[in-house]
Amino acid sequence: MITIDTFTRVLDLGGTFVFAISGALAAVNRRLDLFGILVLSFVAGNFGGITRDVLIGAVPPAALTNGLYLLVSVIAGLITFLAYAGIDRLRSPVLMFDAVGLSFFAVAGTQKALAFGASPVTAALLGMLTGIGGGMTRDVLLREIPQVLRSDLYAVAALAGAAVVVGGSEIGASYGWSALAGGALCLGIRFMAI
Amino acid sequence: MITIDTFTRVLDLGGTFVFAISGALAAVNRRLDLFGILVLSFVAGNFGGITRDVLIGAVPPAALTNGLYLLVSVIAGLITFLAYAGIDRLRSPVLMFDAVGLSFFAVAGTQKALAFGASPVTAALLGMLTGIGGGMTRDVLLREIPQVLRSDLYAVAALAGAAVVVGGSEIGASYGWSALAGGALCLGIRFMAI
Amino acid sequence: MITIDTFTRVLDLGGTFVFAISGALAAVNRRLDLFGILVLSFVAGNFGGITRDVLIGAVPPAALTNGLYLLVSVIAGLITFLAYAGIDRLRSPVLMFDAVGLSFFAVAGTQKALAFGASPVTAALLGMLTGIGGGMTRDVLLREIPQVLRSDLYAVAALAGAAVVVGGSEIGASYGWSALAGGALCLGIRFMAI
Repeated sequence: MITIDTFTRVLDLGGTFVFAISGALAAVNRRLDLFGILVLSFVAGNFGGITRDVLIGAVPPAALTNGLYLLVSVIAGLITFLAYAGIDRLRSPVLMFDAVGLSFFAVAGTQKALAFGASPVTAALLGMLTGIGGGMTRDVLLREIPQVLRSDLYAVAALAGAAVVVGGSEIGASYGWSALAGGALCLGIRFMAI
Repeated sequence: MITIDTFTRVLDLGGTFVFAISGALAAVNRRLDLFGILVLSFVAGNFGGITRDVLIGAVPPAALTNGLYLLVSVIAGLITFLAYAGIDRLRSPVLMFDAVGLSFFAVAGTQKALAFGASPVTAALLGMLTGIGGGMTRDVLLREIPQVLRSDLYAVAALAGAAVVVGGSEIGASYGWSALAGGALCLGIRFMAI
Repeated sequence: MITIDTFTRVLDLGGTFVFAISGALAAVNRRLDLFGILVLSFVAGNFGGITRDVLIGAVPPAALTNGLYLLVSVIAGLITFLAYAGIDRLRSPVLMFDAVGLSFFAVAGTQKALAFGASPVTAALLGMLTGIGGGMTRDVLLREIPQVLRSDLYAVAALAGAAVVVGGSEIGASYGWSALAGGALCLGIRFMAI
């Protein structure tokens, strides 16, 4: 049986990977060069989690103490650069990877907050913030109005996913099932909206 | 006699309410839908206080541990949505609610920082940052140059109000009178400038 | 022999001064008035260091507990205002002061993180974030796509400088020499790119 720590870490790195791809794709759309792409991969992939860690007092944040986060972000950026640089605007892939990242982070953020002893309301809000933080920073740095303000069901999707995880923890469900249910709900709501 | 904790909490929630309205009005101006309006209400109403709490080490921030902040923000957003959605640009109401929120937060931020043992200079700077943080984030998310950079007497008003509260604490004045004097000064300076 | 604390403080204040000038120049370019210039001086000069202090748990941040940071920022803003207000756009001076500030902060950020017990990887990443934070916030507030995304060798320069400082600490070199080598490398890479 894997521990909650390992489980959260894997979710977190998964979210970092897909959000980093969304950041890299957005950077490719703006015709940034390789370095700009890598910076935006790191920012999109890690600012949500860094914000969560700061808000629960887990400093220095995992994204800075564990080199894997940087490595995963750089790999995501390089893959995107090699596969997509030079081709035309890719709006919907950005949104798709963003939606998957949102689900990963909403779940991982909530579970990490619960593990740090946050109350149910706090954990759900932190899960939501973890989910929306990376994409919000990505869009602000590229001077776009963030998805979270433009899209009908973005923050709501993250909050719903986080609430399922909190509910699962309250009724004593395993964190694996809670994560699966919360993530699926978040992803389902987002895909409905896209 | 109410305690300083209760007093700060009430000021904080009042500031959250009016800043949330300023955020919702700005979102209405940009023709965002209901969800975008609610997100911007929460951001404008709470990012100043969240920043202050992070800076003094009071984590998780009150805005996330106490469901009232979310509730107050959502109510402010809903009221604004029901009353104003669909009508034309409202520049001066945004500025007016923003000015009231600035005063509330400059005072509440300073008093909370003093209660956490901050030195006079630190408390005044934290009060200023608490005041300007929410509106700054609101404007950045909407891709506008923040009021705090465009308006003559924005940061100065917050700093003056915060300084009065610090001064009041130094000479042993009651926090009620300090808050009233500081808030009135901040509001007066801002109204002069609008 | 000066202590590492004093040494970091001096580097930090030097970085604050030059970054504050870069912020003030950018504000002059945008025709902001004196108050806007001073706010942007403070933001550009201090948000990198504030971010670093929050991320390592050194709260309240030095920039808020020590009045010198505010003083240095205001002086930098006033000098810039008196010398440059009214003249035409100054793109390359902004970049030049920005590059010097980047070097100061990358080095000071890394050394402060090491002094707080951060691991080598963490210290290097924190040094990089300290370096890029102030300029990134300056550009976001002025609605420009940040230098760190537009310029080939911005984050890389900061990371290289930080890595040299970490390497110097690992092999037991004096922090003075490490700082000099790291700062020179960072500055050299940036000047190559400008």
